[in-house]
Amino acid sequence: MSKGDSRPGRTSDVDILGLDGTSAKRKHDTVVTEEPLEIRLVARGVTRTLAITMRTPGNDFELAAGFVYNEGVVRGRGEIAGINYCLDPSVDPDQRYNIVNVDLSADTLPDLDRLERHFTTSSACGVCGRAQLDSLRELGVEPLNDDVRVDVATLYALPARMREVQRVFESTGGLHAAALFDANGAVKTVREDVGRHNAVDKLVGWGLLDGRLPFSGSILMVSGRAGYEILQKSAVARIPIVCSVSAPSSLSVDLAREFNVTLVGFLRGERANVYAGSERIA
Amino acid sequence: MSKGDSRPGRTSDVDILGLDGTSAKRKHDTVVTEEPLEIRLVARGVTRTLAITMRTPGNDFELAAGFVYNEGVVRGRGEIAGINYCLDPSVDPDQRYNIVNVDLSADTLPDLDRLERHFTTSSACGVCGRAQLDSLRELGVEPLNDDVRVDVATLYALPARMREVQRVFESTGGLHAAALFDANGAVKTVREDVGRHNAVDKLVGWGLLDGRLPFSGSILMVSGRAGYEILQKSAVARIPIVCSVSAPSSLSVDLAREFNVTLVGFLRGERANVYAGSERIA
Repeated sequence: MSKGDSRPGRTSDVDILGLDGTSAKRKHDTVVTEEPLEIRLVARGVTRTLAITMRTPGNDFELAAGFVYNEGVVRGRGEIAGINYCLDPSVDPDQRYNIVNVDLSADTLPDLDRLERHFTTSSACGVCGRAQLDSLRELGVEPLNDDVRVDVATLYALPARMREVQRVFESTGGLHAAALFDANGAVKTVREDVGRHNAVDKLVGWGLLDGRLPFSGSILMVSGRAGYEILQKSAVARIPIVCSVSAPSSLSVDLAREFNVTLVGFLRGERANVYAGSERIA
Repeated sequence: MSKGDSRPGRTSDVDILGLDGTSAKRKHDTVVTEEPLEIRLVARGVTRTLAITMRTPGNDFELAAGFVYNEGVVRGRGEIAGINYCLDPSVDPDQRYNIVNVDLSADTLPDLDRLERHFTTSSACGVCGRAQLDSLRELGVEPLNDDVRVDVATLYALPARMREVQRVFESTGGLHAAALFDANGAVKTVREDVGRHNAVDKLVGWGLLDGRLPFSGSILMVSGRAGYEILQKSAVARIPIVCSVSAPSSLSVDLAREFNVTLVGFLRGERANVYAGSERIA
Protein backbone atom coordinates (compact mmCIF):
# COMPACT_ATOMS: atom_id res chain seq x y z
CA MET A 1 0.00 0.00 0.00
CA SER A 2 2.77 2.34 -0.95
CA LYS A 3 1.73 5.94 -1.39
CA GLY A 4 4.83 6.91 -3.38
CA ASP A 5 6.20 10.28 -2.37
CA SER A 6 2.97 11.51 -0.83
CA ARG A 7 2.16 11.28 2.84
CA PRO A 8 0.49 8.06 3.89
CA GLY A 9 -3.23 8.47 4.53
CA ARG A 10 -5.15 7.40 7.60
CA THR A 11 -6.91 4.71 5.62
CA SER A 12 -5.93 2.50 2.71
CA ASP A 13 -8.13 0.95 0.02
CA VAL A 14 -8.15 -2.82 -0.36
CA ASP A 15 -10.04 -5.35 -2.47
CA ILE A 16 -11.64 -8.01 -0.34
CA LEU A 17 -13.98 -10.96 -0.55
CA GLY A 18 -17.14 -10.31 1.41
CA LEU A 19 -18.73 -13.47 2.83
CA ASP A 20 -22.42 -13.44 3.70
CA GLY A 21 -23.87 -16.84 4.53
CA THR A 22 -22.90 -19.04 1.58
CA SER A 23 -22.39 -16.20 -0.90
CA ALA A 24 -19.07 -14.47 -1.61
CA LYS A 25 -18.62 -11.17 -3.42
CA ARG A 26 -15.53 -9.23 -4.45
CA LYS A 27 -15.74 -5.69 -3.16
CA HIS A 28 -13.75 -2.62 -2.17
CA ASP A 29 -13.07 -1.84 1.45
CA THR A 30 -10.92 0.51 3.49
CA VAL A 31 -8.62 -0.44 6.33
CA VAL A 32 -6.80 1.71 8.84
CA THR A 33 -3.23 2.49 7.85
CA GLU A 34 -0.62 1.12 10.24
CA GLU A 35 2.99 2.18 9.70
CA PRO A 36 5.99 2.41 11.99
CA LEU A 37 7.02 5.85 13.23
CA GLU A 38 10.56 6.40 14.41
CA ILE A 39 10.87 9.21 16.96
CA ARG A 40 14.36 10.71 17.08
CA LEU A 41 15.82 13.20 19.49
CA VAL A 42 18.22 15.81 18.10
CA ALA A 43 20.45 18.11 20.17
CA ARG A 44 23.02 20.29 18.39
CA GLY A 45 23.08 17.96 15.41
CA VAL A 46 23.53 14.80 17.47
CA THR A 47 20.70 12.33 16.82
CA ARG A 48 19.42 9.35 18.77
CA THR A 49 16.41 7.10 18.24
CA LEU A 50 14.05 7.31 21.21
CA ALA A 51 11.36 4.87 20.10
CA ILE A 52 9.69 3.16 17.20
CA THR A 53 5.95 2.81 17.46
CA MET A 54 3.35 1.34 15.13
CA ARG A 55 0.86 4.11 14.46
CA THR A 56 -1.77 5.46 12.12
CA PRO A 57 -0.29 8.36 10.11
CA GLY A 58 -1.65 11.80 10.97
CA ASN A 59 -0.79 14.24 13.79
CA ASP A 60 2.69 12.73 13.82
CA PHE A 61 4.32 15.80 15.37
CA GLU A 62 1.76 15.73 18.17
CA LEU A 63 2.42 12.03 18.68
CA ALA A 64 6.17 12.67 18.97
CA ALA A 65 5.65 15.67 21.27
CA GLY A 66 3.23 13.78 23.52
CA PHE A 67 5.56 10.80 23.67
CA VAL A 68 8.64 12.79 24.71
CA TYR A 69 6.57 14.73 27.26
CA ASN A 70 5.10 11.60 28.75
CA GLU A 71 8.49 9.90 28.98
CA GLY A 72 9.88 12.86 30.91
CA VAL A 73 12.35 13.83 28.15
CA VAL A 74 10.92 17.37 28.10
CA ARG A 75 8.95 19.19 30.79
CA GLY A 76 7.48 21.93 28.63
CA ARG A 77 7.03 23.42 25.19
CA GLY A 78 10.12 25.61 25.58
CA GLU A 79 12.40 22.58 25.65
CA ILE A 80 11.45 21.70 22.07
CA ALA A 81 13.18 23.84 19.42
CA GLY A 82 11.33 22.24 16.52
CA ILE A 83 9.76 19.08 15.14
CA ASN A 84 10.11 17.93 11.54
CA TYR A 85 10.07 14.94 9.23
CA CYS A 86 13.38 13.41 8.16
CA LEU A 87 13.04 14.39 4.48
CA ASP A 88 16.51 13.33 3.42
CA PRO A 89 16.22 12.91 -0.40
CA SER A 90 18.34 9.75 -0.18
CA VAL A 91 15.64 8.14 1.96
CA ASP A 92 13.17 5.84 0.26
CA PRO A 93 9.94 7.74 -0.46
CA ASP A 94 7.96 5.20 1.58
CA GLN A 95 9.99 6.09 4.64
CA ARG A 96 10.11 9.87 4.49
CA TYR A 97 7.06 10.46 6.58
CA ASN A 98 7.84 7.70 9.04
CA ILE A 99 10.68 9.47 10.84
CA VAL A 100 10.10 12.48 13.06
CA ASN A 101 12.98 14.49 14.51
CA VAL A 102 12.32 16.27 17.78
CA ASP A 103 14.90 19.06 17.98
CA LEU A 104 15.68 19.83 21.61
CA SER A 105 16.61 23.26 22.91
CA ALA A 106 19.15 21.64 25.20
CA ASP A 107 22.82 21.44 24.25
CA THR A 108 23.04 17.71 24.85
CA LEU A 109 20.80 14.67 24.57
CA PRO A 110 19.26 13.47 27.84
CA ASP A 111 20.48 10.29 29.50
CA LEU A 112 17.94 7.94 27.97
CA ASP A 113 19.16 4.93 29.93
CA ARG A 114 18.44 6.77 33.15
CA LEU A 115 14.96 7.72 31.99
CA GLU A 116 14.23 4.20 30.88
CA ARG A 117 15.40 2.70 34.13
CA HIS A 118 13.25 5.19 35.92
CA PHE A 119 10.14 3.89 34.29
CA THR A 120 10.78 0.22 34.28
CA THR A 121 13.13 -1.00 36.99
CA SER A 122 13.42 1.38 39.88
CA SER A 123 13.92 -1.45 42.36
CA ALA A 124 16.91 -3.61 43.00
CA CYS A 125 15.67 -6.84 41.47
CA GLY A 126 12.83 -6.57 39.06
CA VAL A 127 9.54 -4.84 38.68
CA CYS A 128 6.06 -4.72 40.11
CA GLY A 129 3.04 -2.49 40.02
CA ARG A 130 4.11 -0.85 43.27
CA ALA A 131 7.47 0.06 41.73
CA GLN A 132 5.78 1.46 38.62
CA LEU A 133 3.75 3.87 40.74
CA ASP A 134 6.79 4.81 42.82
CA SER A 135 8.81 5.60 39.71
CA LEU A 136 6.03 7.86 38.47
CA ARG A 137 6.33 9.84 41.71
CA GLU A 138 10.10 9.94 41.38
CA LEU A 139 9.61 11.50 37.95
CA GLY A 140 7.87 14.38 39.72
CA VAL A 141 4.25 13.37 39.12
CA GLU A 142 2.14 14.31 42.17
CA PRO A 143 -1.42 13.28 43.12
CA LEU A 144 -3.99 15.53 41.44
CA ASN A 145 -5.38 18.32 43.56
CA ASP A 146 -8.17 19.26 41.13
CA ASP A 147 -11.59 20.09 42.57
CA VAL A 148 -13.50 19.99 39.27
CA ARG A 149 -16.99 18.46 39.47
CA VAL A 150 -18.93 16.80 36.68
CA ASP A 151 -22.63 16.11 36.50
CA VAL A 152 -23.58 12.48 35.99
CA ALA A 153 -25.77 13.42 33.01
CA THR A 154 -22.70 15.00 31.40
CA LEU A 155 -20.79 11.75 31.90
CA TYR A 156 -23.53 9.66 30.29
CA ALA A 157 -23.45 11.91 27.22
CA LEU A 158 -19.72 11.57 26.54
CA PRO A 159 -19.61 8.34 24.49
CA ALA A 160 -22.15 9.64 21.96
CA ARG A 161 -20.33 12.97 21.70
CA MET A 162 -17.04 11.23 21.08
CA ARG A 163 -18.56 9.13 18.32
CA GLU A 164 -19.99 12.26 16.70
CA VAL A 165 -16.56 13.79 16.29
CA GLN A 166 -14.81 10.67 15.11
CA ARG A 167 -14.51 10.92 11.38
CA VAL A 168 -12.73 7.70 10.52
CA PHE A 169 -14.13 5.17 12.94
CA GLU A 170 -17.38 4.55 11.11
CA SER A 171 -15.64 3.80 7.82
CA THR A 172 -13.11 1.25 9.05
CA GLY A 173 -14.03 0.10 12.55
CA GLY A 174 -10.34 -0.06 13.26
CA LEU A 175 -9.37 3.08 15.11
CA HIS A 176 -9.14 3.85 18.79
CA ALA A 177 -10.13 7.31 19.92
CA ALA A 178 -9.15 9.59 22.79
CA ALA A 179 -11.26 12.69 23.30
CA LEU A 180 -10.81 15.59 25.69
CA PHE A 181 -13.87 17.35 27.12
CA ASP A 182 -14.35 20.22 29.53
CA ALA A 183 -16.35 19.66 32.72
CA ASN A 184 -19.56 20.64 30.92
CA GLY A 185 -19.03 17.92 28.33
CA ALA A 186 -17.98 20.24 25.48
CA VAL A 187 -15.45 18.57 23.17
CA LYS A 188 -12.02 20.20 23.18
CA THR A 189 -10.51 17.84 20.63
CA VAL A 190 -10.30 14.18 19.61
CA ARG A 191 -7.43 12.11 18.26
CA GLU A 192 -7.47 8.65 16.70
CA ASP A 193 -4.97 5.87 16.13
CA VAL A 194 -4.71 2.14 15.64
CA GLY A 195 -3.11 2.17 19.10
CA ARG A 196 -5.04 3.62 22.03
CA HIS A 197 -1.84 4.83 23.72
CA ASN A 198 -0.87 6.71 20.54
CA ALA A 199 -4.25 8.44 20.47
CA VAL A 200 -3.60 9.70 24.01
CA ASP A 201 -0.04 10.76 23.10
CA LYS A 202 -1.43 12.75 20.15
CA LEU A 203 -3.90 14.45 22.45
CA VAL A 204 -1.22 15.34 25.00
CA GLY A 205 1.15 16.44 22.22
CA TRP A 206 -1.56 18.75 20.89
CA GLY A 207 -1.86 20.25 24.36
CA LEU A 208 1.89 20.68 24.68
CA LEU A 209 2.42 22.28 21.26
CA ASP A 210 -0.68 24.45 21.61
CA GLY A 211 0.21 25.67 25.11
CA ARG A 212 -2.80 24.01 26.74
CA LEU A 213 -1.07 21.86 29.35
CA PRO A 214 -1.78 21.02 32.10
CA PHE A 215 -5.23 19.66 31.21
CA SER A 216 -6.74 20.72 34.57
CA GLY A 217 -10.51 20.51 34.87
CA SER A 218 -10.73 18.19 31.85
CA ILE A 219 -12.23 14.80 31.14
CA LEU A 220 -10.47 12.18 29.01
CA MET A 221 -12.64 9.61 27.26
CA VAL A 222 -11.05 6.60 25.56
CA SER A 223 -12.60 3.90 23.43
CA GLY A 224 -12.01 0.37 24.68
CA ARG A 225 -10.08 -0.42 27.83
CA ALA A 226 -8.30 1.83 30.29
CA GLY A 227 -5.04 0.07 31.12
CA TYR A 228 -2.09 1.32 33.11
CA GLU A 229 -0.48 3.17 30.22
CA ILE A 230 -3.55 5.35 29.65
CA LEU A 231 -3.72 6.33 33.31
CA GLN A 232 -0.01 6.98 33.48
CA LYS A 233 -0.14 9.35 30.48
CA SER A 234 -3.23 11.15 31.75
CA ALA A 235 -1.65 11.64 35.20
CA VAL A 236 1.42 13.25 33.61
CA ALA A 237 -0.89 15.56 31.63
CA ARG A 238 -2.86 16.33 34.85
CA ILE A 239 -6.26 15.08 33.65
CA PRO A 240 -8.49 14.64 36.74
CA ILE A 241 -11.24 12.44 35.19
CA VAL A 242 -10.67 9.43 32.92
CA CYS A 243 -13.58 7.52 31.36
CA SER A 244 -13.67 4.46 29.16
CA VAL A 245 -16.41 2.43 27.54
CA SER A 246 -14.80 -0.78 28.77
CA ALA A 247 -12.83 -2.16 31.72
CA PRO A 248 -9.89 -0.77 33.65
CA SER A 249 -7.11 -3.02 34.93
CA SER A 250 -6.02 -3.59 38.52
CA LEU A 251 -2.99 -1.34 38.09
CA SER A 252 -4.97 1.48 36.52
CA VAL A 253 -7.33 1.35 39.52
CA ASP A 254 -4.30 1.43 41.85
CA LEU A 255 -2.83 4.40 40.02
CA ALA A 256 -6.13 6.29 39.98
CA ARG A 257 -6.58 5.83 43.73
CA GLU A 258 -3.02 6.76 44.61
CA PHE A 259 -2.87 9.79 42.32
CA ASN A 260 -6.39 10.98 43.08
CA VAL A 261 -7.76 10.47 39.56
CA THR A 262 -11.46 9.82 38.96
CA LEU A 263 -11.68 6.59 36.98
CA VAL A 264 -14.96 5.63 35.29
CA GLY A 265 -15.37 2.39 33.35
CA PHE A 266 -18.10 0.65 31.37
CA LEU A 267 -19.62 4.04 30.54
CA ARG A 268 -22.55 2.89 28.39
CA GLY A 269 -26.04 4.33 28.17
CA GLU A 270 -27.05 5.58 31.61
CA ARG A 271 -24.76 3.23 33.50
CA ALA A 272 -21.16 3.34 34.64
CA ASN A 273 -18.73 1.96 37.22
CA VAL A 274 -16.69 4.41 39.27
CA TYR A 275 -13.43 2.82 40.40
CA ALA A 276 -11.84 5.84 42.07
CA GLY A 277 -12.44 9.49 42.86
CA SER A 278 -16.26 9.38 42.92
CA GLU A 279 -16.37 12.70 44.85
CA ARG A 280 -15.86 14.54 41.53
CA ILE A 281 -19.17 13.18 40.21
CA ALA A 282 -22.27 15.19 41.20
CA MET B 1 -3.87 -5.02 45.31
CA SER B 2 -0.84 -6.70 46.78
CA LYS B 3 -1.12 -10.44 47.06
CA GLY B 4 1.66 -10.76 49.63
CA ASP B 5 3.82 -13.77 48.97
CA SER B 6 1.27 -15.61 46.87
CA ARG B 7 1.13 -15.50 43.11
CA PRO B 8 -0.93 -12.66 41.69
CA GLY B 9 -4.27 -13.85 40.35
CA ARG B 10 -5.76 -13.13 36.96
CA THR B 11 -8.39 -10.92 38.53
CA SER B 12 -8.47 -8.62 41.53
CA ASP B 13 -11.41 -7.62 43.73
CA VAL B 14 -12.28 -3.94 44.02
CA ASP B 15 -15.01 -1.89 45.69
CA ILE B 16 -16.71 0.42 43.24
CA LEU B 17 -19.59 2.82 42.94
CA GLY B 18 -22.12 1.53 40.43
CA LEU B 19 -24.06 4.31 38.66
CA ASP B 20 -27.44 3.50 37.12
CA GLY B 21 -29.37 6.55 35.97
CA THR B 22 -29.47 8.85 38.98
CA SER B 23 -28.84 6.14 41.58
CA ALA B 24 -25.45 5.15 42.94
CA LYS B 25 -24.65 1.97 44.86
CA ARG B 26 -21.48 0.72 46.50
CA LYS B 27 -20.68 -2.78 45.29
CA HIS B 28 -17.95 -5.35 44.76
CA ASP B 29 -16.46 -5.89 41.34
CA THR B 30 -13.52 -7.70 39.80
CA VAL B 31 -10.98 -6.22 37.41
CA VAL B 32 -8.32 -7.88 35.32
CA THR B 33 -4.92 -7.92 36.98
CA GLU B 34 -2.25 -5.99 35.10
CA GLU B 35 1.32 -6.28 36.33
CA PRO B 36 4.69 -5.82 34.65
CA LEU B 37 6.62 -8.95 33.69
CA GLU B 38 10.35 -8.71 33.20
CA ILE B 39 11.71 -11.34 30.82
CA ARG B 40 15.40 -12.07 31.38
CA LEU B 41 17.79 -14.16 29.34
CA VAL B 42 20.37 -16.21 31.19
CA ALA B 43 23.38 -17.96 29.64
CA ARG B 44 25.97 -19.59 31.91
CA GLY B 45 24.97 -17.35 34.80
CA VAL B 46 25.12 -14.12 32.79
CA THR B 47 21.78 -12.32 32.86
CA ARG B 48 20.30 -9.62 30.65
CA THR B 49 16.84 -8.09 30.57
CA LEU B 50 15.17 -8.73 27.21
CA ALA B 51 11.89 -6.93 27.75
CA ILE B 52 9.37 -5.67 30.25
CA THR B 53 5.75 -6.12 29.27
CA MET B 54 2.52 -5.27 31.03
CA ARG B 55 0.58 -8.50 31.28
CA THR B 56 -2.10 -10.44 33.12
CA PRO B 57 -0.45 -13.01 35.42
CA GLY B 58 -0.88 -16.63 34.39
CA ASN B 59 0.99 -18.77 31.85
CA ASP B 60 4.02 -16.57 32.43
CA PHE B 61 6.52 -19.18 31.27
CA GLU B 62 4.58 -19.61 28.04
CA LEU B 63 4.54 -15.85 27.59
CA ALA B 64 8.31 -15.69 28.03
CA ALA B 65 8.88 -18.68 25.72
CA GLY B 66 6.59 -17.28 23.04
CA PHE B 67 8.24 -13.89 23.26
CA VAL B 68 11.79 -15.16 22.85
CA TYR B 69 10.69 -17.44 20.00
CA ASN B 70 8.89 -14.66 18.19
CA GLU B 71 11.84 -12.29 18.57
CA GLY B 72 14.15 -14.85 17.01
CA VAL B 73 16.21 -15.33 20.19
CA VAL B 74 15.57 -19.10 20.06
CA ARG B 75 14.58 -21.23 17.07
CA GLY B 76 13.32 -24.26 18.95
CA ARG B 77 12.57 -25.89 22.30
CA GLY B 78 16.06 -27.36 22.53
CA GLU B 79 17.63 -23.93 22.83
CA ILE B 80 15.85 -23.35 26.16
CA ALA B 81 17.47 -25.10 29.14
CA GLY B 82 14.81 -23.99 31.60
CA ILE B 83 12.38 -21.27 32.60
CA ASN B 84 11.81 -20.12 36.16
CA TYR B 85 10.72 -17.26 38.37
CA CYS B 86 13.37 -15.08 40.02
CA LEU B 87 12.57 -16.19 43.59
CA ASP B 88 15.47 -14.44 45.28
CA PRO B 89 14.37 -14.17 48.96
CA SER B 90 15.79 -10.63 49.08
CA VAL B 91 13.29 -9.60 46.44
CA ASP B 92 10.11 -7.89 47.59
CA PRO B 93 7.25 -10.45 47.73
CA ASP B 94 5.22 -8.35 45.30
CA GLN B 95 7.92 -8.73 42.68
CA ARG B 96 8.78 -12.40 42.96
CA TYR B 97 6.38 -13.58 40.32
CA ASN B 98 7.00 -10.66 37.98
CA ILE B 99 10.44 -11.75 36.80
CA VAL B 100 10.94 -14.78 34.56
CA ASN B 101 14.40 -16.10 33.72
CA VAL B 102 14.75 -17.93 30.41
CA ASP B 103 17.84 -20.10 30.76
CA LEU B 104 19.43 -20.60 27.35
CA SER B 105 21.29 -23.74 26.32
CA ALA B 106 23.82 -21.59 24.51
CA ASP B 107 27.12 -20.62 26.13
CA THR B 108 26.65 -16.93 25.50
CA LEU B 109 23.81 -14.44 25.29
CA PRO B 110 22.70 -13.53 21.77
CA ASP B 111 23.52 -10.12 20.32
CA LEU B 112 20.29 -8.39 21.28
CA ASP B 113 21.22 -5.15 19.53
CA ARG B 114 21.51 -7.04 16.26
CA LEU B 115 18.14 -8.73 16.78
CA GLU B 116 16.51 -5.46 17.68
CA ARG B 117 17.92 -3.66 14.67
CA HIS B 118 16.69 -6.53 12.55
CA PHE B 119 13.13 -5.95 13.58
CA THR B 120 13.00 -2.22 13.67
CA THR B 121 15.48 -0.51 11.42
CA SER B 122 16.79 -2.74 8.70
CA SER B 123 17.19 0.20 6.30
CA ALA B 124 19.75 2.95 6.20
CA CYS B 125 17.60 5.82 7.37
CA GLY B 126 14.49 4.90 9.22
CA VAL B 127 11.62 2.53 8.97
CA CYS B 128 8.59 1.72 6.91
CA GLY B 129 6.11 -1.08 6.47
CA ARG B 130 8.09 -2.44 3.51
CA ALA B 131 11.22 -2.63 5.68
CA GLN B 132 9.29 -4.43 8.44
CA LEU B 133 8.24 -7.15 6.01
CA ASP B 134 11.75 -7.40 4.57
CA SER B 135 13.26 -7.81 8.02
CA LEU B 136 10.83 -10.63 8.73
CA ARG B 137 12.15 -12.43 5.65
CA GLU B 138 15.74 -11.75 6.71
CA LEU B 139 14.94 -13.46 10.01
CA GLY B 140 14.19 -16.60 7.98
CA VAL B 141 10.41 -16.39 7.88
CA GLU B 142 9.16 -17.67 4.51
CA PRO B 143 5.70 -17.38 2.89
CA LEU B 144 3.39 -20.16 4.10
CA ASN B 145 3.03 -23.14 1.82
CA ASP B 146 0.10 -24.69 3.70
CA ASP B 147 -2.74 -26.19 1.65
CA VAL B 148 -5.21 -26.56 4.53
CA ARG B 149 -8.83 -25.79 3.65
CA VAL B 150 -11.57 -24.65 5.99
CA ASP B 151 -15.31 -24.75 5.46
CA VAL B 152 -17.08 -21.41 5.70
CA ALA B 153 -19.54 -22.86 8.23
CA THR B 154 -16.58 -23.79 10.43
CA LEU B 155 -15.33 -20.19 10.24
CA TYR B 156 -18.69 -18.78 11.27
CA ALA B 157 -18.73 -21.04 14.34
CA LEU B 158 -15.34 -19.90 15.70
CA PRO B 159 -16.30 -16.76 17.68
CA ALA B 160 -18.94 -18.63 19.70
CA ARG B 161 -16.54 -21.49 20.37
CA MET B 162 -13.85 -19.11 21.55
CA ARG B 163 -16.28 -17.45 23.95
CA GLU B 164 -17.29 -20.84 25.34
CA VAL B 165 -13.76 -21.61 26.42
CA GLN B 166 -12.96 -18.22 27.87
CA ARG B 167 -13.33 -18.45 31.58
CA VAL B 168 -12.44 -14.95 32.68
CA PHE B 169 -13.88 -12.74 29.99
CA GLU B 170 -17.45 -12.84 31.21
CA SER B 171 -16.56 -11.80 34.73
CA THR B 172 -14.41 -8.78 33.94
CA GLY B 173 -14.88 -7.79 30.29
CA GLY B 174 -11.24 -6.84 30.31
CA LEU B 175 -9.31 -9.66 28.72
CA HIS B 176 -8.26 -10.28 25.16
CA ALA B 177 -8.26 -13.84 23.91
CA ALA B 178 -6.31 -15.81 21.34
CA ALA B 179 -7.60 -19.28 20.48
CA LEU B 180 -6.10 -21.96 18.29
CA PHE B 181 -8.39 -24.31 16.33
CA ASP B 182 -7.80 -27.17 13.95
CA ALA B 183 -9.24 -26.97 10.42
CA ASN B 184 -12.44 -28.65 11.60
CA GLY B 185 -13.02 -25.93 14.20
CA ALA B 186 -12.05 -28.03 17.23
CA VAL B 187 -10.42 -25.92 19.96
CA LYS B 188 -6.78 -26.78 20.64
CA THR B 189 -6.31 -24.20 23.36
CA VAL B 190 -7.05 -20.61 24.33
CA ARG B 191 -4.99 -17.99 26.17
CA GLU B 192 -6.04 -14.66 27.62
CA ASP B 193 -4.33 -11.43 28.59
CA VAL B 194 -4.95 -7.75 29.06
CA GLY B 195 -2.75 -7.37 25.94
CA ARG B 196 -3.75 -9.12 22.75
CA HIS B 197 -0.10 -9.61 21.69
CA ASN B 198 0.61 -11.29 25.04
CA ALA B 199 -2.28 -13.70 24.51
CA VAL B 200 -0.73 -14.73 21.18
CA ASP B 201 2.73 -15.04 22.77
CA LYS B 202 1.28 -17.33 25.44
CA LEU B 203 -0.32 -19.46 22.74
CA VAL B 204 2.92 -19.72 20.77
CA GLY B 205 4.89 -20.36 23.97
CA TRP B 206 2.53 -23.22 24.81
CA GLY B 207 3.21 -24.65 21.37
CA LEU B 208 6.96 -24.29 21.77
CA LEU B 209 7.15 -25.81 25.26
CA ASP B 210 4.70 -28.58 24.37
CA GLY B 211 6.46 -29.53 21.13
CA ARG B 212 3.54 -28.51 18.93
CA LEU B 213 5.24 -25.99 16.66
CA PRO B 214 4.90 -25.25 13.78
CA PHE B 215 1.14 -24.66 13.99
CA SER B 216 0.54 -25.93 10.44
CA GLY B 217 -3.06 -26.55 9.42
CA SER B 218 -4.33 -24.37 12.30
CA ILE B 219 -6.61 -21.39 12.66
CA LEU B 220 -5.87 -18.50 15.02
CA MET B 221 -8.82 -16.49 16.28
CA VAL B 222 -8.25 -13.25 18.19
CA SER B 223 -10.69 -10.96 19.94
CA GLY B 224 -10.63 -7.37 18.77
CA ARG B 225 -8.35 -6.11 16.03
CA ALA B 226 -5.72 -7.91 13.96
CA GLY B 227 -2.80 -5.49 13.73
CA TYR B 228 0.68 -6.05 12.37
CA GLU B 229 2.07 -7.58 15.55
CA ILE B 230 -0.53 -10.36 15.58
CA LEU B 231 0.19 -11.27 11.95
CA GLN B 232 3.93 -11.13 12.51
CA LYS B 233 3.72 -13.54 15.47
CA SER B 234 1.38 -15.91 13.67
CA ALA B 235 3.64 -16.00 10.60
CA VAL B 236 6.63 -16.95 12.76
CA ALA B 237 4.52 -19.74 14.33
CA ARG B 238 3.40 -20.82 10.81
CA ILE B 239 -0.36 -20.36 11.32
CA PRO B 240 -2.00 -20.32 7.87
CA ILE B 241 -5.38 -18.80 8.82
CA VAL B 242 -5.90 -15.77 11.09
CA CYS B 243 -9.39 -14.57 12.04
CA SER B 244 -10.54 -11.63 14.12
CA VAL B 245 -13.90 -10.24 15.16
CA SER B 246 -12.80 -6.76 14.20
CA ALA B 247 -10.65 -4.92 11.64
CA PRO B 248 -7.16 -5.63 10.33
CA SER B 249 -4.71 -2.81 9.56
CA SER B 250 -3.09 -1.95 6.22
CA LEU B 251 0.19 -3.52 7.27
CA SER B 252 -1.42 -6.72 8.48
CA VAL B 253 -3.14 -7.04 5.08
CA ASP B 254 0.21 -6.42 3.35
CA LEU B 255 1.90 -9.06 5.50
CA ALA B 256 -0.89 -11.59 4.95
CA ARG B 257 -0.69 -11.17 1.16
CA GLU B 258 3.09 -11.31 0.99
CA PHE B 259 3.42 -14.28 3.35
CA ASN B 260 0.44 -16.18 1.95
CA VAL B 261 -1.64 -16.06 5.13
CA THR B 262 -5.44 -16.21 5.01
CA LEU B 263 -6.71 -13.13 6.85
CA VAL B 264 -10.38 -12.93 7.88
CA GLY B 265 -11.82 -9.87 9.64
CA PHE B 266 -15.18 -8.80 11.06
CA LEU B 267 -16.09 -12.45 11.64
CA ARG B 268 -19.54 -11.99 13.17
CA GLY B 269 -22.63 -14.13 12.77
CA GLU B 270 -22.67 -15.50 9.22
CA ARG B 271 -20.62 -12.66 7.77
CA ALA B 272 -16.92 -12.00 7.31
CA ASN B 273 -14.41 -10.08 5.20
CA VAL B 274 -11.54 -12.01 3.62
CA TYR B 275 -8.53 -9.73 3.10
CA ALA B 276 -6.06 -12.31 1.82
CA GLY B 277 -5.72 -16.01 0.98
CA SER B 278 -9.39 -16.70 0.23
CA GLU B 279 -8.44 -19.91 -1.61
CA ARG B 280 -8.18 -21.68 1.76
CA ILE B 281 -11.91 -21.07 2.42
CA ALA B 282 -14.26 -23.66 0.91
